Amino acid sequence: MAASQSRFDPKFTEHVLSIIGPNTPPRTRTVMSALIRHIHDFAREVELTTEEWMMGVHFINSLGQISDSKRNETHRICDVIGLESLVDEIAHKHALETEEVPTSSSILGPFWSPNAPWRNLGDSIIQDPHQGQVSLFRGKVLDLVTGKGISNAVVDIWQASSNGKYDFQDPENQTDNNLRGKFKTDEDGNYWFYCLKPTAYSLPTDGPAGVLLNLLDRHAWRPAHIHMMISHGDYKPVTTQLYPDDDPNLETDTVFAVKDDLIIHFDPLEGDSNAELKLEYNFKLAPKGKPPVERAQL
Amino acid sequence: MAASQSRFDPKFTEHVLSIIGPNTPPRTRTVMSALIRHIHDFAREVELTTEEWMMGVHFINSLGQISDSKRNETHRICDVIGLESLVDEIAHKHALETEEVPTSSSILGPFWSPNAPWRNLGDSIIQDPHQGQVSLFRGKVLDLVTGKGISNAVVDIWQASSNGKYDFQDPENQTDNNLRGKFKTDEDGNYWFYCLKPTAYSLPTDGPAGVLLNLLDRHAWRPAHIHMMISHGDYKPVTTQLYPDDDPNLETDTVFAVKDDLIIHFDPLEGDSNAELKLEYNFKLAPKGKPPVERAQL
Repeated sequence: MAASQSRFDPKFTEHVLSIIGPNTPPRTRTVMSALIRHIHDFAREVELTTEEWMMGVHFINSLGQISDSKRNETHRICDVIGLESLVDEIAHKHALETEEVPTSSSILGPFWSPNAPWRNLGDSIIQDPHQGQVSLFRGKVLDLVTGKGISNAVVDIWQASSNGKYDFQDPENQTDNNLRGKFKTDEDGNYWFYCLKPTAYSLPTDGPAGVLLNLLDRHAWRPAHIHMMISHGDYKPVTTQLYPDDDPNLETDTVFAVKDDLIIHFDPLEGDSNAELKLEYNFKLAPKGKPPVERAQL
Repeated sequence: MAASQSRFDPKFTEHVLSIIGPNTPPRTRTVMSALIRHIHDFAREVELTTEEWMMGVHFINSLGQISDSKRNETHRICDVIGLESLVDEIAHKHALETEEVPTSSSILGPFWSPNAPWRNLGDSIIQDPHQGQVSLFRGKVLDLVTGKGISNAVVDIWQASSNGKYDFQDPENQTDNNLRGKFKTDEDGNYWFYCLKPTAYSLPTDGPAGVLLNLLDRHAWRPAHIHMMISHGDYKPVTTQLYPDDDPNLETDTVFAVKDDLIIHFDPLEGDSNAELKLEYNFKLAPKGKPPVERAQL
């Protein structure tokens, strides 16, 4: 609880904040003061014990100790407590501030690669053997305002293989850029390619994220999903994830990234020897430079 | 700000907390729910950007990466934001819950050792050469209720040398247990020994604590202090620090541990060839088993 309402020294937090020096930039002062105040309020509210605090200290130290260039455990912990998803919501609201609602954004996650290869419309992103179901994925990238197709929009897709692992987590079974690709929409804004129906996977639980999930009596499963990043120079980009509607963990996604308009349905596909399923999804992008609506109207 | 007052999804935090499972113990649920709620409220309040969040992620990873068996950077960061001092205040209030005020407690810090040697009353804790001022330190350990001396109370003292370092930070200049010692009070509760007038020192600024202090435009100095832990089987122990009244950083202690009744004054000492200064301080211990006062009365 706030210092003023608690039975502890009502001036303590004020004192800690008062010694932030004059050369701290205003935004830094705002952010750090709020962070310190919330940490203090938390400690007073639950009357945090020395033992609980020390458990937290050891836990935080353990995050950096297991992290390396391929593993970012603090990022993962933020996902598990919903912080990345919340920051994404805030960023999305800032970026758009319009009355109309484009395709929901969702978190980037740690598995995007800047090196995904360009592929041709109609290609497959599947390079290696798998146990999954091949799907034809098609749709349009649309202008949110006019509803017309956007040509030359970039459709960047990445997904885990049927064993739940991304290429760089799984060098024994997957070649570089397996299940990754960038496509450009045709003159009417259409895209189409082959990918896998995605497979659910668990966050790694051999580190602090596993400790936290266990402490909270929660499962570690992400619903099956396809990562997408849609962009075009004249529009605000969208990073998102699409979730098959038959996944049992849509309501309890361990990183809280599912939104209703991102749930998709796969149908059987007839007459295509390359794939057994099909999926259609249209993305809506907001034009850049549209005047923002006043916050009070939102 | 709280979800209900913000312009972001008012149900998001509630949803994150709702999936904490039934097997989480009640206290864990209370603490973790409050922590997650405060982190979310912080992010909404300042409208935390993706870049700011990622800076925080990297900062937290850096804490564990620089920590080892002799360095606990997360502990230090908690000190810098006042959290250890606040947790100490909470613990102290829990331990005592009495009407009378015994000697204030203060933080243990990372330099206490369980291996400090027993010394005899009148001994010096100074083993090695130094540039400081030797002081005769004497006083009594008193029963808070009766005001009488407590015999056989343990007075455990540790302090940095005149270069601002503790023995195990400074193996080139100091032998093990230099400036550490445990004494037992005499039959009237008296103790006396020789130590140094303490020297101010800076927290190590070569790691994340230095980054944070710089960000907050704050100095890294702790006021000069002597660490003490006073205990006896029949009384509630006190861990505290004493601060010379001539230190310029009493108001801006970088770990916020100074309290008014812990400020001490050194006087010149005449006629003792062992020391040039003297200090007197009495500690008051609360008896164990005294019925706590109701919280409402505090």
